[in-house]
Order: sequence, then C-alpha cells, then structure tokens
Amino acid sequence: MNDFTQIELSRPGKNNRLRPVVKNLEQELPKLAEDGVQIAVKYSGLNFADIMMRLGLYPDAPSAPFCPGYEISGIVEKVGTQVTHLRPGLEVFAGCYFGGQASHVQVPAWQVVPVAQNYDLKTAAALPVSALTCDTALIGLARVQASDSVMIDCGSGALGAMMISYLKHLGCREIIGLTSKQEKLATIEERGAKAMTIESWQHSQIKVDVIINSRGGKSLSRDRNHLKTLGRLVALGASHMVTKGGLSYFNVIKEFLAMKKISFIDLMHANQAVMGLNVLRLFEEPQVLKNSLVRVNELSQLNIYQPVVDKVFSYQEVVDAYDYLGQGHSRGKVLLRWDV
Amino acid sequence: MNDFTQIELSRPGKNNRLRPVVKNLEQELPKLAEDGVQIAVKYSGLNFADIMMRLGLYPDAPSAPFCPGYEISGIVEKVGTQVTHLRPGLEVFAGCYFGGQASHVQVPAWQVVPVAQNYDLKTAAALPVSALTCDTALIGLARVQASDSVMIDCGSGALGAMMISYLKHLGCREIIGLTSKQEKLATIEERGAKAMTIESWQHSQIKVDVIINSRGGKSLSRDRNHLKTLGRLVALGASHMVTKGGLSYFNVIKEFLAMKKISFIDLMHANQAVMGLNVLRLFEEPQVLKNSLVRVNELSQLNIYQPVVDKVFSYQEVVDAYDYLGQGHSRGKVLLRWDV
Repeated sequence: MNDFTQIELSRPGKNNRLRPVVKNLEQELPKLAEDGVQIAVKYSGLNFADIMMRLGLYPDAPSAPFCPGYEISGIVEKVGTQVTHLRPGLEVFAGCYFGGQASHVQVPAWQVVPVAQNYDLKTAAALPVSALTCDTALIGLARVQASDSVMIDCGSGALGAMMISYLKHLGCREIIGLTSKQEKLATIEERGAKAMTIESWQHSQIKVDVIINSRGGKSLSRDRNHLKTLGRLVALGASHMVTKGGLSYFNVIKEFLAMKKISFIDLMHANQAVMGLNVLRLFEEPQVLKNSLVRVNELSQLNIYQPVVDKVFSYQEVVDAYDYLGQGHSRGKVLLRWDV
Repeated sequence: MNDFTQIELSRPGKNNRLRPVVKNLEQELPKLAEDGVQIAVKYSGLNFADIMMRLGLYPDAPSAPFCPGYEISGIVEKVGTQVTHLRPGLEVFAGCYFGGQASHVQVPAWQVVPVAQNYDLKTAAALPVSALTCDTALIGLARVQASDSVMIDCGSGALGAMMISYLKHLGCREIIGLTSKQEKLATIEERGAKAMTIESWQHSQIKVDVIINSRGGKSLSRDRNHLKTLGRLVALGASHMVTKGGLSYFNVIKEFLAMKKISFIDLMHANQAVMGLNVLRLFEEPQVLKNSLVRVNELSQLNIYQPVVDKVFSYQEVVDAYDYLGQGHSRGKVLLRWDV
C-alpha cells in the first residue's frame, strides 16, 4: 500500500491554496518510532484553528506548505517496538499536533486511545479536540462543581454538546447555552440546557458561577458582568471573528483591538477569576494532555461525551468542508472521510 | 454599663490621627435590629487594610471620622428578637464591616459564630479575616485539590499559617512558603511547608499548580512564570508596598504602576488562570460570606484553622499596634485587647 494522501495548505492567506496531494508512503513515513503508532485514517476532524490557519491568521501554524489536522480516527496499521497496549487492526482515535488531515498518520502511542464499544469510527473522530477542550476547560481550569450554574456560549456546536453532556453528568443545577441564531435554540434545548440567544443573554441580568466564552473580543468584558462573586470565566476562542460575512482580516483586527486587558486590581475588586485555554498548545505538554486523555477515555466509555457529527465530506471536497465550517453553518463536528 | 470606647480614625493620611474615643453606649447603639447581636468585645483583630486606611490609601474606606475593624471575639450581651441560635453569655467570634475596633459591636447574627471548644477568645479573634481569606482563596476561587503543588508567598504570617494548615489537612503533596526575611524561614518549616526566601524563589525554576500572591505589584507577572500549565494564581493583596522603610506614598504609586495588565490572549497562550480576591468586599455579599463562615466554623471545630497570635496590645496602645503591623514585624495576628 503505497498510496498516501495529505491535505496540503501550500499558500495560507486570502488567496489560499488547500488541496489533497498524493505522496509516497514509504518515502514520507519511512520508519516508525519505538513508541510510535501508524494509523490508517478513516476520518479527520476539522477545527476552527484550521480555518484560521487557512487564512494565515493562526500564530502557531507551521510554515507552509504543511498538513493541518489535530484529530483522527482509524485503524492501527503498525506499532513501535515499545508499544504493548495497542495492536494492528484495533480501532482507535488520536490527537495529532498537525498532520491529521491525511490518509495515514504516525503519532506517539500515548496520544492514541482505543475506540470504546459505544462509538463508531465516525463518532470517535469527533472526540479528541472537543473532549480535550471540554475536559481541560471544565475540569482542568474551572474545576466545575455540581453547585455551579454554568453558561456556555457555544451551546449549539460540537463542543457545546459535549460540555452540556458533561455538566448534566456532574449534576449542575443550571446550564445555559447560547447561540447567535434563533433557529438553533431548539437544538440547545434538546441537549438539556436552557437556550438563549446571545442578544437576549447580553440584555439579561442573569449571573452565573462559570462562563465558557468562545466568542472572544468585546464579549469577554461583557460576559464578566454576568459573573457572580467568586465566579470564573474561561476564554477559549475567538469565534466571534466569524460574523455573518465569514472570517475576514477586518473582523480579526477589529476583534483583537476590542479585547480589553484586565487589571489585577479589577479582579480583586470583583472577586473574580479569568482563565485562558488553547487546548492545541497542550500538545507541547505531554503529561497534561496524557492525564486529560485518560479522563476522556474513561468518560467516553461511560457515554458522557456524546460527540455530534454535523457533516462528513470526502477528503477530495476539503475546500467545501473548510468553507462550510468557516461560514458558521455547522451544529456539530465537520469531518473529512478517507477511503481506506 | 454606659462606657463605650471606639478606635476613631479622624484624619487619615500622612499626619493621621488614630485614638480611642469614649462615647455613650445607649446613644451610639440605641437599639438592636431583630436579626442583630450585641457583643461585648474582648479582642479586635488588625489587618493590612487598616494600615492602608490609616494612611488614606484604601479606596473602600468610609469617610472619616470612622471606626475601623473587621473582626472581633467577645461575649454576647443581647440578641435581637429573631435570633434563636445565640444567647447572652456565649463566647463568639464575628466578622464586621468596619466598627470592630470598639468595646461593643452590633452585627447581623449570620456574621457571628460560637467559639469552638478548642479555642480561647484570644485565638478566636485571629480567626475571621484570615480564615475567610483562606477559605475563599483556596476553596472558593482556586478550588485546590490534593494533587496540587501550592506556593504561598506570605508563609510566615497569620494567613500563611492558616493556609499551610488547611493544605496539610487537604493532603497537598507540595507546599512552599515564602518569606522576605531569612530569620523567618524556620517558622515556615515548623508549620510543615518547604521554606524559601522570596529572592531564592524568584531565581528558581520551580513551577507549581497554585500560587497565592499577597505581594502584588511586579511580583504578579514574575510569579506567573512559575505557574504550571493549567495553573492558577490568586492575587489577594499588595503587601509589597510595605518595604523595608514601611508603607509610603512613593511605594504605593510605584507598585501600582508596576502592576501589569493581563491580556486574554496571553492567558490562552499560557493556559493559565488568574484570580483576584478582596475578602473585605464579601461583606457586601451576605450569601457568599455566609457559606464561607459555615465552612470556617466546621473546619475550626476540626482544629484545621490554627490561628497564630503574634502580639496583643491594649486598646490604649492602638498607635503602637498599627505601627508594629505596618512595619512588617509580625509573624501572626496583631490584636487589641478591651477591658470588659
């Protein structure tokens, strides 16, 4: 099997170039590390960071050309000599530090988790980034407790679904999910949270213990007014940069400038906590990510994490897939499918 | 008993005027609220905020003349008609929103806690502010867990003693206490924490999960470099303003300007949490303070909170007491004693 296809972003920016490129497997992945696992990929997940990278707006992106992609599911092909808990033929999902949007990946074994019986490969591909974000935001940073009331501003997306599911499992007494679109309110209610539009939230006097903010920009200061005393706000994205017209340079600069700095004196005065999360940077911290993946594995077996897949595109339709996610249409994970 | 004495701060600032003033009890406290408790005070605690107020440097201070004081212990004299769980003659401690440095106080019953058998009135007077700070910083905000490594920068003081005691009770695997003075290192070791000078901490490469910062100013940005990924820093003071020469206007302005603002983008990049605490402002939030006092009461009965009293002054020596605390000599609580 010599066929190896990678999505290649060869020109980020306004006139970007993004396409599948066929390569030689033996040449590209000549040998496997002792602790490595080679996986024939069935599905690759798309993330907001990929959309940013396509436009050249993501600071941590590798230099072009490169293969994006943080998460996959597939079947183990080979394992390194030191890997004893995984074997060829096993269905797995994995987090990758780039390179996941490809027909084959090689990753360290600790980044690979066997797919629990309750998931198929499609659902499993939607797990890694959302579940890791959910875990590190709610458990690692905010340390949410059952007595907390929680607002999630991305209530209708893939991450929102997972967070609501985890908070219900925890027994949180109040879960509010926001959406910018009236027609997505029902989706949030079906997931078991109280649904509000962003606008009605902003005009409300509601205060909660925990706020998960993925919109960024001006919304961060606004949301702080909705925090109770000893409340905590987790900032984990800047999705607000994707407005009605889609992601644009103008919106990015506008939102960046609107992101007010915080003074410790303000925080002390308000008795508040603010937290920042960029889960993709955790790939540089194996131990933190490892602990988190162990919890994700346990909770996924208990069916706590219920990933929602919105749409699957063939890898050949990669541009359509990126456009679909970038335009803010999705209500769950967008995947690329590989024909292995 | 008509004698009623209050410490009165009648002129805050550089040439401040601070002294006991004798008043008429019936005139000053003519009647008790339905949910109120009147206490004959035996001991009043001094806090860093009092020192700041004396110099006119505390934004939340009432307008002069006023009676400072956030915490007392003493004996219940009268209870309001709706108060059923407290009775005259009972030994109690209480948090006060000003007015605690007086021979008598009237406070809402929920702010009053019976003294547990393991404390005397002197020890009990050292409890309220330190225990509330300890509780809201470690439990309310940081939500410390046994798996956390914790650094406390005020390891040799009254608050430090209590925090170390609580963290040992929790089973934290690593507790580091800082002090600016070499000769106080032994005090911290005796309390059961690893002792370091602030200087050696700053030059070290040590990283921890939780940092309790009471120094403020420049030390906040410096301490953030000692946070692990997903770590949390709690800012709860600005004691650094008291340097070798004592508290001065110059130091306050210098430290205020040195307190860098934080951007959400930095926080996301670092995967960190920053938190601010001003426990005295919680008196405006009865419910939060109430929950906290309930926990303080429970833990004080278990002997978790072991307040350390450094020195007791007669109320007539109030100026000496303020000077002593303000010059940074104390290794525990400084109290005023009333001759009731």
